[in-house]
Amino acid sequence: MRTEWRGFKGNKWKSEVDVRDFIQNNYTSYDGDENFLAKPTKATEELWGILKNLQKEERAKGGVLDMETEIVSSLTAYGPGYIGENTKELEKIVGLQTDKPLKRAFMPYGGIKMAEQACTTYGYQPADKLHEIFTKYAKTHNDGVFDAYTNEMKVVRHNHILTGLPDTYGRGRIVGDYRRVALYGIDFLIQEKKNDLENMGDREMIDDVIRLREEVSMQIKALKGLKEMAASYGFDISIPAANAREAVQWLYFGYLGAIKTQNGAAMSVGRVSTFLDIYMTRDINEGNLTEDDAQELIDHLVMKFRMVKFARIPSYNQLFSGDPVWATLEVGGIGQDGRSMVTKNDFRFLHTLENMGPSPEPNLTVLYSKRLPDGFKKYAAMISVATSSIQYENDDIMRPIWGDDYSICCCVSATQTGKEMQLFGARANLAKALLYAINGGVDAKSHEQCGPAFRPITGDEVTYEEFEPRFDAMMEWLASVYVKTLNLIHYMHDKYFYEAEEMALIDTDVRRTFATGIAGFSHVVDSICAIKYAKVNIVRDETGFPVEFKTIGDFPRYGNDDERADDIAVWLLKTFMNKIKKCHTYRNSEPTTSILTITSNVVYGKYTGAMPDGRAAGTPLAPGANPSYGAEKNGLLASLNSVAKLPYEYALDGISNTQTINPGALGHDDEERANTLVNVMDGYFNQGAHHLNVNVFGVDKLKDAMEHPEKEEYQNFTIRVSGYAVKFIDLTREQQLDVIARQAHETL
Amino acid sequence: MRTEWRGFKGNKWKSEVDVRDFIQNNYTSYDGDENFLAKPTKATEELWGILKNLQKEERAKGGVLDMETEIVSSLTAYGPGYIGENTKELEKIVGLQTDKPLKRAFMPYGGIKMAEQACTTYGYQPADKLHEIFTKYAKTHNDGVFDAYTNEMKVVRHNHILTGLPDTYGRGRIVGDYRRVALYGIDFLIQEKKNDLENMGDREMIDDVIRLREEVSMQIKALKGLKEMAASYGFDISIPAANAREAVQWLYFGYLGAIKTQNGAAMSVGRVSTFLDIYMTRDINEGNLTEDDAQELIDHLVMKFRMVKFARIPSYNQLFSGDPVWATLEVGGIGQDGRSMVTKNDFRFLHTLENMGPSPEPNLTVLYSKRLPDGFKKYAAMISVATSSIQYENDDIMRPIWGDDYSICCCVSATQTGKEMQLFGARANLAKALLYAINGGVDAKSHEQCGPAFRPITGDEVTYEEFEPRFDAMMEWLASVYVKTLNLIHYMHDKYFYEAEEMALIDTDVRRTFATGIAGFSHVVDSICAIKYAKVNIVRDETGFPVEFKTIGDFPRYGNDDERADDIAVWLLKTFMNKIKKCHTYRNSEPTTSILTITSNVVYGKYTGAMPDGRAAGTPLAPGANPSYGAEKNGLLASLNSVAKLPYEYALDGISNTQTINPGALGHDDEERANTLVNVMDGYFNQGAHHLNVNVFGVDKLKDAMEHPEKEEYQNFTIRVSGYAVKFIDLTREQQLDVIARQAHETL
Repeated sequence: MRTEWRGFKGNKWKSEVDVRDFIQNNYTSYDGDENFLAKPTKATEELWGILKNLQKEERAKGGVLDMETEIVSSLTAYGPGYIGENTKELEKIVGLQTDKPLKRAFMPYGGIKMAEQACTTYGYQPADKLHEIFTKYAKTHNDGVFDAYTNEMKVVRHNHILTGLPDTYGRGRIVGDYRRVALYGIDFLIQEKKNDLENMGDREMIDDVIRLREEVSMQIKALKGLKEMAASYGFDISIPAANAREAVQWLYFGYLGAIKTQNGAAMSVGRVSTFLDIYMTRDINEGNLTEDDAQELIDHLVMKFRMVKFARIPSYNQLFSGDPVWATLEVGGIGQDGRSMVTKNDFRFLHTLENMGPSPEPNLTVLYSKRLPDGFKKYAAMISVATSSIQYENDDIMRPIWGDDYSICCCVSATQTGKEMQLFGARANLAKALLYAINGGVDAKSHEQCGPAFRPITGDEVTYEEFEPRFDAMMEWLASVYVKTLNLIHYMHDKYFYEAEEMALIDTDVRRTFATGIAGFSHVVDSICAIKYAKVNIVRDETGFPVEFKTIGDFPRYGNDDERADDIAVWLLKTFMNKIKKCHTYRNSEPTTSILTITSNVVYGKYTGAMPDGRAAGTPLAPGANPSYGAEKNGLLASLNSVAKLPYEYALDGISNTQTINPGALGHDDEERANTLVNVMDGYFNQGAHHLNVNVFGVDKLKDAMEHPEKEEYQNFTIRVSGYAVKFIDLTREQQLDVIARQAHETL
Repeated sequence: MRTEWRGFKGNKWKSEVDVRDFIQNNYTSYDGDENFLAKPTKATEELWGILKNLQKEERAKGGVLDMETEIVSSLTAYGPGYIGENTKELEKIVGLQTDKPLKRAFMPYGGIKMAEQACTTYGYQPADKLHEIFTKYAKTHNDGVFDAYTNEMKVVRHNHILTGLPDTYGRGRIVGDYRRVALYGIDFLIQEKKNDLENMGDREMIDDVIRLREEVSMQIKALKGLKEMAASYGFDISIPAANAREAVQWLYFGYLGAIKTQNGAAMSVGRVSTFLDIYMTRDINEGNLTEDDAQELIDHLVMKFRMVKFARIPSYNQLFSGDPVWATLEVGGIGQDGRSMVTKNDFRFLHTLENMGPSPEPNLTVLYSKRLPDGFKKYAAMISVATSSIQYENDDIMRPIWGDDYSICCCVSATQTGKEMQLFGARANLAKALLYAINGGVDAKSHEQCGPAFRPITGDEVTYEEFEPRFDAMMEWLASVYVKTLNLIHYMHDKYFYEAEEMALIDTDVRRTFATGIAGFSHVVDSICAIKYAKVNIVRDETGFPVEFKTIGDFPRYGNDDERADDIAVWLLKTFMNKIKKCHTYRNSEPTTSILTITSNVVYGKYTGAMPDGRAAGTPLAPGANPSYGAEKNGLLASLNSVAKLPYEYALDGISNTQTINPGALGHDDEERANTLVNVMDGYFNQGAHHLNVNVFGVDKLKDAMEHPEKEEYQNFTIRVSGYAVKFIDLTREQQLDVIARQAHETL
């Protein structure tokens, strides 16, 4: 047996890649409290101090510290880089995306125009030769997509009924199983891929087989590149990691390879905590590691995740505000065998928010179950109360579907680690579809015939009888053009911007999910309620075009635990998902959907007209699966109950719910608040709810932070928004106002 | 109606692209003799004089006059270029591949290694930046292919049982309908392609539709590039050609675009003669063109076709010796309505071989029918007798399958002009397959297990009962790996080296043929005859490996009009073709095969062991469908009869037959020889034969030319080899010896 595997139990994982089998055979659950945790080391404080200054400098320079203009990013485009000038020895975990910390790489393969615009936006001028190469000789994803787009797709995109399509940058949402680098070393992984290549598709050489063969060859090249990259830092990752420090370092190299070669909207880290704890425990048992050392490794790793940067363009930043990268990382969860998978490492990762203060990245996600150890549940709740930096997802509903080794690949979507990838797919604005149903496909903002010219409602009132079949037909059309657009985008992404490095760390026989998304959910539900239960009169302009609705009478609203509204919510989700499922999806992927908007709810809203539920034209949509602003009349628990009714099996890509609770509503002190929060979550998730972003602060703090961003206390003030966390002061004023407008529950 | 279309009849072709409809409505048959033809003009003589000197200089420099090392070839990579320094006014038809005549362009998309090796072979050093671009940023066809190749494919390729695979340069064999540029102008063609894009694949966005949409977008860009290229020469080809000179020029620009962007082994011109004659006839009738002018246009066009050059590597030159480009161009043929399609232009094209002497290019092909006008048949035969530069193909068997507007896309294969493309596919060496059947898949040359390890023949004798099932199984395997290899190559060619310019001049809804090929045909037939009708003893080396055969007793041989052998020939063709048809073919293309080896018969032979028919190891295979050297015992007509029995419908890619006839065998003077040749061809083609290369000279002339290549009379001495014509002195000595070894019929 390999010496690096000394003391590790189990056999299956030794003869073939099976990280889960390794974990299940070797991890040590931890049921205690947080008292074992260690403070930051001097090295951590020094490095974090440097980084904080760089972050300050970055903000002072308008959001970007430095950008590459000459070198195309690749695994080996740069030599080794370090946080500070003389910090090489301090950094327990090394590796930068470029040659300098926070410097953004040049990544043209998604689209040369985007890469160039990102530079010029911040005053940098990319080299002419790069323009020549990526316009004359090397085609990019974006060029391929626009070559193939149909007119309909361009119109639909232009009218923002489909938004956030990954047609000009990396699609992201692919989580390489970076643990494999540590457990097996690169040479083993190369050999496994060579075996796959050997056994692939000799029977018939059809297009799918040819494509896959080329991809696996590219994966093998990427693995070799990864080895070269690590060697430049002085590490030989061809063999397995021999101890905890190497395990963390090897794993990080795997992730670093991903962020050097792809600029996906989400570049998740995955489920690494329990895995790494096995190495920490072995080292501690062997007497080679102290708790201080262990925490330092995790702090340094997390520091690296806090440094991930990509060059973005203004239209991207509008959708995904505050420079998020979704370095999503999970803690918690229960194994298939019923054992808690919480280890000391799960505490250590949460503890980084104390050792180095709140931070949006990595996007820390607690895989929640009522059965999690009390000590851990309470510690996580305490961190939430203190930092508003973490999110919770229901392990009890995800585990039956994804097993006990899934990673969150973006904001909230699960994929089986190393076995699946997700074809990411932006969002369809169902609020616009509802308006199209009423006016026959004409866009309220552009006045273009965007949807099909179906028969509009011509009377003064929107009756349910007239509305329902029209809305059904319009959703049918929208689902179809949506899936077709995504098929085309993902075909081109595979063709021009294939994720060789990440896919090298995923099984060759990969399962693909095809993630669609819904925006405007609550407004559609409430508007249908208005149509059904009240009287919705159409206000038309001089040309007869509906510009507003006068809704007379009361109607139920989603977010109040009212079956009338909540049933419509469930119907809406199921109906749209079933329409998505009708379509052919690229590479036989499995269609899913999400109710999740990120900060794009503001942009979506801008392009959406007035609605029967009373929402004014141009105002933000409610985020994700949240009830509409002002709709929640019965308190937090009623709101949570409504969201919990949405069936997860129809929205496997996730149902995002973001709530802000006034500290006072949870209790008089942090102890009481943490306990209350645990109770709230136990109740919420036990009903089958999927997700909760927990913010604990009052609106006054938000308002003060908006007006006084210079105050020291707000420098790292982090909040959860739909799908991720963000430093509040990094949001645009528009988005800050949107956050302020949201309900902050004063009572439960 | 457009003024450029004045006087033209018909309607269908005016509202949609339909060149055939235009031709059928407007051409003027010519039944007379050659007496109307004009001598070369002074301009022609001056230009041709310059070119002849350049060709001499090229030969003196080792075969290459000049090469590009800095610029990647494209439609618009160069400004205008002319034959001489002050010849712009003399050149009635303008346009060079690069900036200088005979200078070879740099074409890396098929494979950067090949492009570089081609340069360094001739002492040129390509720019470093090109290496960087095409290894780091832009992937090439060759890289894609080798990423996807299976080990089996590499072994099969390495052992030369599949040879000439287009995996490192352009596949060629795509004939753009260059006439469309003249008849419609580019803007009309762009609009048609836009309409296609508009109406394509909105129902389901599957991979095939996405790929096609991107391709058509690339086609539209290529059409725009073509316009730009022509504009640099001072011509506006956005509108149709207004007269004969413009028609010839527009058409040539279309072809020039192809040879600027692709380096296919065959870059055919297509069926342009009758089409262009319509413009000549109109101009002559309008009093704007004399016969001298008309001939000058054709001479200048043909001069351009004689100048086409590509940068090649030694291994390519071994297979395709003498720098051929297959600028194949057809004359003759009969229309579906029974009218002869021979026009004065068909005479003019043949007349270029008199006005400017013999030449291998363009690869002039007479579409033969007994019903062709006598004057034309006799003139063609006279030119054959005088120049040995032309080939004949049976229009009467091709017309029912391909209609009356097909072009020869390579050596001998037909495709419907503007409606089809061919996926070119090299050759399978059935002679090797026969040996593999005997020894269980081990290669006689490399001693590797190349084929499957089937049960070998272990006795001392090869009996038919033991041999037949083994050969059948081995062909089954070979057909399968062959088709799989081609599928993969063509997938990558479409991905990395798509022929946007040529495909822009072909219907979007293109029909694809999938061309396989057979090498070693006659040796397999004769060897099976030996096994069946004589006693074939195996001579084994000390390890027991069969190295030779001692065949005792007489056996029939293919090429003597002997049913016993000829039946086996037919069986062999049908059996192999049926095995090919079993396989999935790329893009649902229609599989075909050819019996055609080009000059590659020498290389194939080198890697092929001794055979039961008596052929020694390493000696050349007989070319194409020719009987084996020395096998023909019953004279030319018996030989032709044997070949004529091969059913064309099983070899739609062509059955190439090359014959050399001693002038004395045809008659006492050229008049008599021409008449005899016409009679021979009438008889041969009336039996359903497909093709004939006609050489009229004696072996003594070949021997003298080999020994005295410096003699002026041999400078343009052109001969027909399997599939093309070549200057004899440009062949390697090895190939010259092979040609000399072939039967030169002394009697009919």
